[in-house]
Amino acid sequence: MNKSMLALIALSLPLATLSAEDQPMTLEAMADATLSQDTFAWDFVEGITTEVGPRQAGTEAEARGREWAVRWLEAQGFENVEDEPFEMQTWVPGEVHKAEIVSPFPQPLVVQPLGGSASTGPEGITAEVVFFRTVDDLRAAPAGSLAGKIAYVSHAMTRTQDGSQYGFAGPARWVGARLASQRGAVATVIKSVGTDYHRNPHTGGTDFADDANPIPAGALSLPDAANLERMFERANGRPITMKLTLTPQDLGTTMSGNVVGEIVGRDPSLPPVLIACHIDSWWNGTGAFDDGAGCGIVAAAALHVRHVGQPLRTIRVLMAGAEETGLWGSKAYSEAHLDERIAVGLESDFGADRIWKFESNFRESNPDLHKRIARAVARFGVSAGMDVATGGADINISRDQKGAIIDLAQDGTRYFDLHHTPDDTLDKIDPVQLRQNVAVWTQVVGILANEPKDIQTGK
Amino acid sequence: MNKSMLALIALSLPLATLSAEDQPMTLEAMADATLSQDTFAWDFVEGITTEVGPRQAGTEAEARGREWAVRWLEAQGFENVEDEPFEMQTWVPGEVHKAEIVSPFPQPLVVQPLGGSASTGPEGITAEVVFFRTVDDLRAAPAGSLAGKIAYVSHAMTRTQDGSQYGFAGPARWVGARLASQRGAVATVIKSVGTDYHRNPHTGGTDFADDANPIPAGALSLPDAANLERMFERANGRPITMKLTLTPQDLGTTMSGNVVGEIVGRDPSLPPVLIACHIDSWWNGTGAFDDGAGCGIVAAAALHVRHVGQPLRTIRVLMAGAEETGLWGSKAYSEAHLDERIAVGLESDFGADRIWKFESNFRESNPDLHKRIARAVARFGVSAGMDVATGGADINISRDQKGAIIDLAQDGTRYFDLHHTPDDTLDKIDPVQLRQNVAVWTQVVGILANEPKDIQTGK
Repeated sequence: MNKSMLALIALSLPLATLSAEDQPMTLEAMADATLSQDTFAWDFVEGITTEVGPRQAGTEAEARGREWAVRWLEAQGFENVEDEPFEMQTWVPGEVHKAEIVSPFPQPLVVQPLGGSASTGPEGITAEVVFFRTVDDLRAAPAGSLAGKIAYVSHAMTRTQDGSQYGFAGPARWVGARLASQRGAVATVIKSVGTDYHRNPHTGGTDFADDANPIPAGALSLPDAANLERMFERANGRPITMKLTLTPQDLGTTMSGNVVGEIVGRDPSLPPVLIACHIDSWWNGTGAFDDGAGCGIVAAAALHVRHVGQPLRTIRVLMAGAEETGLWGSKAYSEAHLDERIAVGLESDFGADRIWKFESNFRESNPDLHKRIARAVARFGVSAGMDVATGGADINISRDQKGAIIDLAQDGTRYFDLHHTPDDTLDKIDPVQLRQNVAVWTQVVGILANEPKDIQTGK
Repeated sequence: MNKSMLALIALSLPLATLSAEDQPMTLEAMADATLSQDTFAWDFVEGITTEVGPRQAGTEAEARGREWAVRWLEAQGFENVEDEPFEMQTWVPGEVHKAEIVSPFPQPLVVQPLGGSASTGPEGITAEVVFFRTVDDLRAAPAGSLAGKIAYVSHAMTRTQDGSQYGFAGPARWVGARLASQRGAVATVIKSVGTDYHRNPHTGGTDFADDANPIPAGALSLPDAANLERMFERANGRPITMKLTLTPQDLGTTMSGNVVGEIVGRDPSLPPVLIACHIDSWWNGTGAFDDGAGCGIVAAAALHVRHVGQPLRTIRVLMAGAEETGLWGSKAYSEAHLDERIAVGLESDFGADRIWKFESNFRESNPDLHKRIARAVARFGVSAGMDVATGGADINISRDQKGAIIDLAQDGTRYFDLHHTPDDTLDKIDPVQLRQNVAVWTQVVGILANEPKDIQTGK
């Protein structure tokens, strides 16, 4: 019986039946075994997408998602499983999402509202469309110049492995509607911030801040955006008129929650390792890539580390609520727990494709640990990057505490094909790549949870 | 100046300015030139998808499509351009297309109605779902066994280059609803007959024939079908209840039409070459792959043949109306013109990917011509197949006349990713492959239109 087969048996036994004595297995052997044998991550993401589906922040669907996660964590033997409630301001997409060109080329276009969009009312808004090739072109439009108009904001976005073009193209969504509102527009439609050509718009939050009146704001799918842009080329200067009907609603204050669970360490006085993801999703997909997979990955890693033996430090899993509509859960968690020092924070929230890069924010302050982790993940094809890890949306607490942070960068090449679309469904997850994530996470969390010295300083 | 550059100039001149004397170019050189230089086919499919969009059979949108095609054909110099009217029975999809699982795993599923579906009424139908893995399993269900139930019909479909698995998987759509109705079902949902994993259902006609009452019938997208099937696995025998709301309508008799146009030959007494496509599309896409591209290809080929010099025979383009909902246009054309002998019929109605196979139904009766065509298209990567060409939906007249038929088989590998879905949009067309189609068609139509002997017999 080789180590791999031993791992297989370990994985198939309930957690409670295993103890450190039963398992001569090393962390390395365990991580290697998960690469071909993990079933936890898939079970989580298959389960929550099938039995719950979409989990719009602040709604009863998200509450069902949290309940489902609590039951799952308890069934796997996590301790101190809680759903920590918090209040939030809740926006829901409503029922009617329609756009149609009225003239000169009548035809329907596929649209979905952006998070934070105002409603057109069921009667819709009909207005001339003004075309801005980039958000900077819109920014350059004079005050009042869009009075009575619908602003259409385009962009060009290329697939990138590191996801960096989200920062390049994202402003069309993040601030396009705000800039249009400030210039008098009655509504905004944007080319989806995405890289696929399917009739599935990419939603996501838009921010009117305090200096713009919310207006209806929608995203066209990329094929529809391309069609609209061709209409401008073919209209020979004739005005293009669109009827837009979006009926989202602000529900005011509702409750959400952060699901937490622990693998309690041998020395609970030591600061815990925090591994995070988010439990909510946009309404239009099923939250598989974003972020059911991330929750499955971090939870699976904690279980595999526990299988090797009780870790020195507690491993705390945080499945944050209401990330998508404004990081409500991550902020609430930081506020509630700011005084409880976290040893190190990590999150998985960028799909389920292969991890290719490791970075920390303690490469200079604790080079020994940084190098040990880099060496340990190299066999999984993960190189060490030279940037300073900053963490993601779900670990505000680590930034607020100015604590240690690790980024395990996933391949983002196809992430923005799926991000915030109806197409974010289980079939998009490649089980082989998902397990590579679990293996890398098992390796890294296992090192961190058994590290006696301070993570950030090495002291 | 090489032949290719001459062709470029020829392509850029209005048809009327060219005569045979200006053009020492051979048909072969013309076909070669179109391979890199055709713009007609793209212009047609870009134009009709942008300026008209979806063209549901029998509706005013289809009428706008026909008007657009008439204007385009006239602008390119086609003669005898007509929109020949016919009556048809018209079904439209209506506004509401919703499915949701009520229990045990509440969540919405993406559904669209099948052509011919009855309406649930706006209040919808809520019923237990019965799972049939194949249409044959449904066929085996006893009479009355589905009383009050919704039948869900699955299938497994693999991508095939020749599209043959459409015949394998298609019955789930073609007869699933009819079989379910005969067994008492209140509605049917099927796994889309398609090969992609996007949240875009594949519609298409379903046939209740004369022996089943029409019931509401919808297609789930493949990700939604997979989700529903996982629910059956995870429900542990609990009933799965769905609420289905589909509000299609039968409009009764409306008018459609067949758009025809000709390149008149030097000897109009000879039977013409008929090259066909269809002008209508399902409402949910824009009719790019199905079949705007086909119309662009056949029309472009006719123009290129004309550029070489006036052909011996007339080339008649038929852009059939109302193909999707029952071959209304193809049947009407045959009925109206059955007495006018067609020399040979060909159609382009399988997307816009590369042609890879040539077949005729006169390989034995006119082997010389069959071999000449096979040799002439070989340089475009088109091999000669051994089956007997049967033609497609748009050339009923050739079958009714028992006339000569040629099939120029397109690569169907990704056709059923897009077929009858919202994703049938211009961006799916590869301009390089589109031009290969035009080149092959130019070569073949040029040979046929200049053939003095009878196509079928060689006499």
